[in-house]
Amino acid sequence: MSITTPKGFVASGLASGIKSGGTLDLALLATDDGRAVPTAATFTSNLAAAPPVHVSRDHLVANGGSAAAVVISSGNANAATGARGRADAERMCALVASGLGVPIEQVLVCSTGLIGTPLPMAPIEAGIPPLVATRSDSAEAAAAAARGILTTDSGRKEVLIESPTFTVAGMAKGAGMLAPNMATMLAFLTTDAAIEPGPLSDLLRIAVRDSFNSMSVDGCTSTNDTVVLMASGRAGVADPNVVVDAVSEACADLSRQMMADAEGASRIFQVRVTGAASDGEAHRAARKVADSLLVKCSINGEDAYWGRVASDLGSAGVTFDLDRLAIAYGGVTVCRDGLAADHDAAALAEHMAGPLVDIHCQLGLADGDGVVMGVDLGYGYIDENRTTS
Amino acid sequence: MSITTPKGFVASGLASGIKSGGTLDLALLATDDGRAVPTAATFTSNLAAAPPVHVSRDHLVANGGSAAAVVISSGNANAATGARGRADAERMCALVASGLGVPIEQVLVCSTGLIGTPLPMAPIEAGIPPLVATRSDSAEAAAAAARGILTTDSGRKEVLIESPTFTVAGMAKGAGMLAPNMATMLAFLTTDAAIEPGPLSDLLRIAVRDSFNSMSVDGCTSTNDTVVLMASGRAGVADPNVVVDAVSEACADLSRQMMADAEGASRIFQVRVTGAASDGEAHRAARKVADSLLVKCSINGEDAYWGRVASDLGSAGVTFDLDRLAIAYGGVTVCRDGLAADHDAAALAEHMAGPLVDIHCQLGLADGDGVVMGVDLGYGYIDENRTTS
Repeated sequence: MSITTPKGFVASGLASGIKSGGTLDLALLATDDGRAVPTAATFTSNLAAAPPVHVSRDHLVANGGSAAAVVISSGNANAATGARGRADAERMCALVASGLGVPIEQVLVCSTGLIGTPLPMAPIEAGIPPLVATRSDSAEAAAAAARGILTTDSGRKEVLIESPTFTVAGMAKGAGMLAPNMATMLAFLTTDAAIEPGPLSDLLRIAVRDSFNSMSVDGCTSTNDTVVLMASGRAGVADPNVVVDAVSEACADLSRQMMADAEGASRIFQVRVTGAASDGEAHRAARKVADSLLVKCSINGEDAYWGRVASDLGSAGVTFDLDRLAIAYGGVTVCRDGLAADHDAAALAEHMAGPLVDIHCQLGLADGDGVVMGVDLGYGYIDENRTTS
Repeated sequence: MSITTPKGFVASGLASGIKSGGTLDLALLATDDGRAVPTAATFTSNLAAAPPVHVSRDHLVANGGSAAAVVISSGNANAATGARGRADAERMCALVASGLGVPIEQVLVCSTGLIGTPLPMAPIEAGIPPLVATRSDSAEAAAAAARGILTTDSGRKEVLIESPTFTVAGMAKGAGMLAPNMATMLAFLTTDAAIEPGPLSDLLRIAVRDSFNSMSVDGCTSTNDTVVLMASGRAGVADPNVVVDAVSEACADLSRQMMADAEGASRIFQVRVTGAASDGEAHRAARKVADSLLVKCSINGEDAYWGRVASDLGSAGVTFDLDRLAIAYGGVTVCRDGLAADHDAAALAEHMAGPLVDIHCQLGLADGDGVVMGVDLGYGYIDENRTTS
């Protein structure tokens, strides 16, 4: 599987020297003919968004929702770097645009890594020309790109969804949950389905909401989070309703790879809220529980302390009636009508010791439902995050 | 210092057997003549509020903002216990009311401990008569009351503020920050100043906002949090503007005792936000930073990683302009105009290694300011909270 499997795309990756030890730190994704294609993106909502986020957003708007390439650097987030950071991000686009022979506005840019230090431009200036020159649709070039965007990830994160008439591919880095010192989540998706910018943007928003935006590690929103989806159109017109399923499946798969790669975590859990007043309230309630330090600690300790879940639901800012609440861990109901329920303690213990803990909260109010994934909180998280060095 | 120093109050405490090993688990605070006096209270905003919270709120309303006594049990929160929990809480009030010879509505009730298990009423039924019988204004009786409300606290938390014309005293338990499995924060304050219920309620709200509501350990709101303030009037009429300062000082002192007693923490920090669009936004921004797992981890690691603070401010939901931001740790400015600032690394390291880390965020927008205290996140927190046993 590779980001260049959908027809019409090339990629490359190399070690420019931003990182030490020959680790790959630059990546390129581009159309194979230099033409701009419909491109959608979602960016962090953080008001301290990094300069590359601003540049990419501006370029996408200037170009009417299309792009010919995206360049990515890893090891330094180019965040909290001000006017210089903006100029550096524009310079990265300009170098790629020059190499490809396209207008600068057709190039997007992403960076990931530590916040607050200017980009080391010397290795980047030297690295981009060979990065552009080595672009190819080969599996090797795509793998180099997928490695070039990583920070503390344990390995490449890639996905390929093949439908009868088109394909969707993706690559991601998911240090957002893993070592939040370098908290950015980046994902790049390609498809050869033909879709106009408007519908493309709509379907990406849906796919992101149900995948990347439904994970919880520490409740933090990075300065650099970006998801980009490019559609070459080479496979012909496709029904957006079919494409959305494939893109959603690709995003969900990449999300799971990120969760599974959470270095500081020993266990994944999911909070499913049903019976809420609305889907939005269900999602908010699930996030409150998934973000809860106490719940995260109890998952680490294999302790089904439902009282804490009830307390988090009660303070989630959603419609709530304790008397209607039921809570189950792995299908074992431990709370019914807001009260402790007799249950099979052995079955519960077996579930709590497993790799994926399922917490189901039935609010008993209406039909709203939502799911948020989380990782536990143990020594590993602290070891990963107590210092940046 | 004791809760019975202000004229007009008696107290008592004993070991009823809710907890094992002869640990004190029942406490009483009452007027010395059985008369109801102006009483204000603030309760948790959690929609899963425990039955004793509902009972106390109802009694206070029914009695027009006055009460003659409050009874407290520790070891079991009587939360998520439904109609039975409500009946048990009412029963505790009835037993005290019977002993004191007052209407049941003049008695408030609080419980703290584990959620989801009915109160053991046998020891409570047996314990309340001697609890009432042994009430006294002696220092020993007050100390027994202050011990009777504790859960995982390392010792009594008491305060006494003496002004020329009146006194304010308080006792508290602060497991809210310490071992959030028993997350309740309870505080009981007495004063002999004469204040009507309306002004008393207003000044308590102000005092709580600037003290107990400005602490952050895990962002969780307990099912049982309660603060009660009783005013006997024995010292004569006092200016509410003077009393508010004394009550605020008492609450702040108890807050600091709770923070200092945070068993799972090795270090306290304060986040001061100035220059915000409003005081409310400053407080919200400070809380976002103080609640941040990444900031808590970095405090544990003595790492002044300001980029993470900037990112939290940017996602706090308040007016924010990165270009105007300055961040200082212990007066050492590490970020100015949203950019890294040259600074004295040795002075910074010395401050980060100290017992109280000060993070000052100047937003540069207007005059809003706010402070939130926090504790670091290290192995200790996890050890305290991974299991309830």
